Amino acid sequence: MAEFSIDRFVDLYAHRTSGMSASEVRALFAVASRPEVVSLAGGMPYVQAIPEEDVLEVVRQVLDEHGTSSLQYGGGQGHPALRERLLALMAEEGVEADAEDVVVTTGAQQALDLTGKIFIDAGDLIAVEAPAYVGALTAFSAYEPRYLQIDVDEDGMKVDQLEEALVRGERPKFVYTCPNFGNPAGVTLSYPRREQLVSLCREASIPIIEDNPYGMLRFEGEPLPCLRTLDPENVIYLGTVSKVFSPGVRVGWALAEQSVVQRLVLAKEAADLCGSAFTMLVTERYLAGDRWRGNLETLVETYRRRRDAMLEAIEEHFPDGAMWTLPAGGFYVWVTLPEWFDTQAMLAAAVERRVAYVPGTAFYPDGRGKHQMRLAFCYPTEDRIREGIARLGSLLEDEEQLYRSLHP
Amino acid sequence: MAEFSIDRFVDLYAHRTSGMSASEVRALFAVASRPEVVSLAGGMPYVQAIPEEDVLEVVRQVLDEHGTSSLQYGGGQGHPALRERLLALMAEEGVEADAEDVVVTTGAQQALDLTGKIFIDAGDLIAVEAPAYVGALTAFSAYEPRYLQIDVDEDGMKVDQLEEALVRGERPKFVYTCPNFGNPAGVTLSYPRREQLVSLCREASIPIIEDNPYGMLRFEGEPLPCLRTLDPENVIYLGTVSKVFSPGVRVGWALAEQSVVQRLVLAKEAADLCGSAFTMLVTERYLAGDRWRGNLETLVETYRRRRDAMLEAIEEHFPDGAMWTLPAGGFYVWVTLPEWFDTQAMLAAAVERRVAYVPGTAFYPDGRGKHQMRLAFCYPTEDRIREGIARLGSLLEDEEQLYRSLHP
Repeated sequence: MAEFSIDRFVDLYAHRTSGMSASEVRALFAVASRPEVVSLAGGMPYVQAIPEEDVLEVVRQVLDEHGTSSLQYGGGQGHPALRERLLALMAEEGVEADAEDVVVTTGAQQALDLTGKIFIDAGDLIAVEAPAYVGALTAFSAYEPRYLQIDVDEDGMKVDQLEEALVRGERPKFVYTCPNFGNPAGVTLSYPRREQLVSLCREASIPIIEDNPYGMLRFEGEPLPCLRTLDPENVIYLGTVSKVFSPGVRVGWALAEQSVVQRLVLAKEAADLCGSAFTMLVTERYLAGDRWRGNLETLVETYRRRRDAMLEAIEEHFPDGAMWTLPAGGFYVWVTLPEWFDTQAMLAAAVERRVAYVPGTAFYPDGRGKHQMRLAFCYPTEDRIREGIARLGSLLEDEEQLYRSLHP
Repeated sequence: MAEFSIDRFVDLYAHRTSGMSASEVRALFAVASRPEVVSLAGGMPYVQAIPEEDVLEVVRQVLDEHGTSSLQYGGGQGHPALRERLLALMAEEGVEADAEDVVVTTGAQQALDLTGKIFIDAGDLIAVEAPAYVGALTAFSAYEPRYLQIDVDEDGMKVDQLEEALVRGERPKFVYTCPNFGNPAGVTLSYPRREQLVSLCREASIPIIEDNPYGMLRFEGEPLPCLRTLDPENVIYLGTVSKVFSPGVRVGWALAEQSVVQRLVLAKEAADLCGSAFTMLVTERYLAGDRWRGNLETLVETYRRRRDAMLEAIEEHFPDGAMWTLPAGGFYVWVTLPEWFDTQAMLAAAVERRVAYVPGTAFYPDGRGKHQMRLAFCYPTEDRIREGIARLGSLLEDEEQLYRSLHP
């Protein structure tokens, strides 16, 4: 935790707050937000691709059609019109569902929090891919679970490892994975592993949390079926409009069995009563038209070019021994450096050289990943990405030379 | 909990979910939302008082000034411009603050949830006024506290009872109260009790959670100083724009010491990353102009007339032996009937007679309040209120006759 001045309540905080840390990394990111720094750290979508006029137009529609009732409290499950509309969005990825099984949340992040809240008692075991989305880990950690970490390779989560753990007698409350262009690894769970994961978890009666924010940001190749499509009963599916429309409306959702839905709604009401009817209706109207498709195509095309720029620049500037993933979609490249690198220790030097990234340790519950880093290509322009990677490459070269001179 | 069909996960849910109940009352409220039923149950503000044009105008301003950056992720603490603006709003009630000490939340409800999250370990004692806002109880209960209930009378929380408990050696993690026109009792903590509460808690180093959604909805009399004003260091103050603007923007906040703020921000980020930049900026622009004052005056005037209509009708229609509070502001009248009444059992009959209320039991952690009920005058028109109270009065008369015939 960052330094507190005098804290009169220091003896009163709950145990879970000791795991909520405002790290050095956070302080560095504050510096990294200066314009001269190329940030390859944040996962901000390129919302500039959405014309303001499209937004104002749907706001106008919402006020015309719903009046000030769009400013009222709504039900905890989310506006019925939006839930219907989200069915159409999921259908684009082959997921069939009923609006009764959808709970609208404040981004998919809140779905992670509420899922943790309804499943995790302190000390419970949960299985997560490793590395995993840092926001999932912080959401779950508030409920003080133990973690079973399942390694990831270029085909996604190594399901064999999960199987071995189950054979050993481990009984996780659920398995968490981001199977499409996952955050942070940028890899996609292969079809055979999808089938293996789904049948393994079904047999063991362990629900799967499928987190799918990036599925519609595919640059090439054919989409694979969602886990939810392979087993609608045992998979809790999480979606968001943050990447196809806007994070600023804070609209995500969970799709689950009725028994889970009812508990999620109660947990949602306890957490914040209801989402914003206003932004739910704006989102519904945006997705009702056809303009979102063109805007999404622009986004995907933009991200593809940025991904290409990043991979080319990495190829050119990174030292021998560095390895990285080749994402077919999404926002992230995951870099594994030789083991002696310490990306957390190196971050200050990187920011000094006007480039930022997220150290690998953030994505493992046990602090592994010291020699890894996540690079986001979603937000900076191609030129900025090339510049940032060149700066980072030169830092890595210098670090390597220093290391070689000390370990000849 | 409502009936579940087959629940494959029944053995997997966290212990806290057993306290999350979708009660019969919830099912009745679904029926009570039919137009022929006068609902004196819900606490929905009269948002119709806000002209749609005022909303469209501020949305236009936000898009003009901020462009699509209003659709982007923001920091966990909330947009700086809004936090500055909220200082001016709090100043209207005499609360002085610094924008650094404000955390914007999804309504004040999320501030309750996050406060519970950072303070409560399972089994910890917390003190709450009794009756207390049901949403505070459900938020806190997710963290499995024990409750110390402090009774309320027409001058608010009986602080002597808290003092006695402290003398007995009870050590609550915090004290929760809604001191202005509280939900559900409609009463206001008197000035002497404010001083007593603040000095008692300061000496004992027990933080006070001051929940103040209704403070600006005063119908008569002079405002009393907020607890936060009496002790800025030991009071965590919760506010919301739900009652002065719109619940649909989902903007509330906590004002607290830096040490608490930092933990709340981390808990907020774990819960949903950030609020909606869009609705935060819309709220900021709405409060920046002067039109909100006129709209608020309209609201207060409307609520005052509805309160008067309700009190007159209660006086006319309720049986001898019924007692009720005389709220000088806010949304609620709290009714205490002779002890043999069971307002929960009676609710189905009330809905059948086309009137709904909230049974008193909802507002006590231990299920007391069987002979009490909360009546909300905020939403229905005066005529509907008179009609609803007449229906309820005739039901109470009939119940009383039945009781007398059985207990002659």
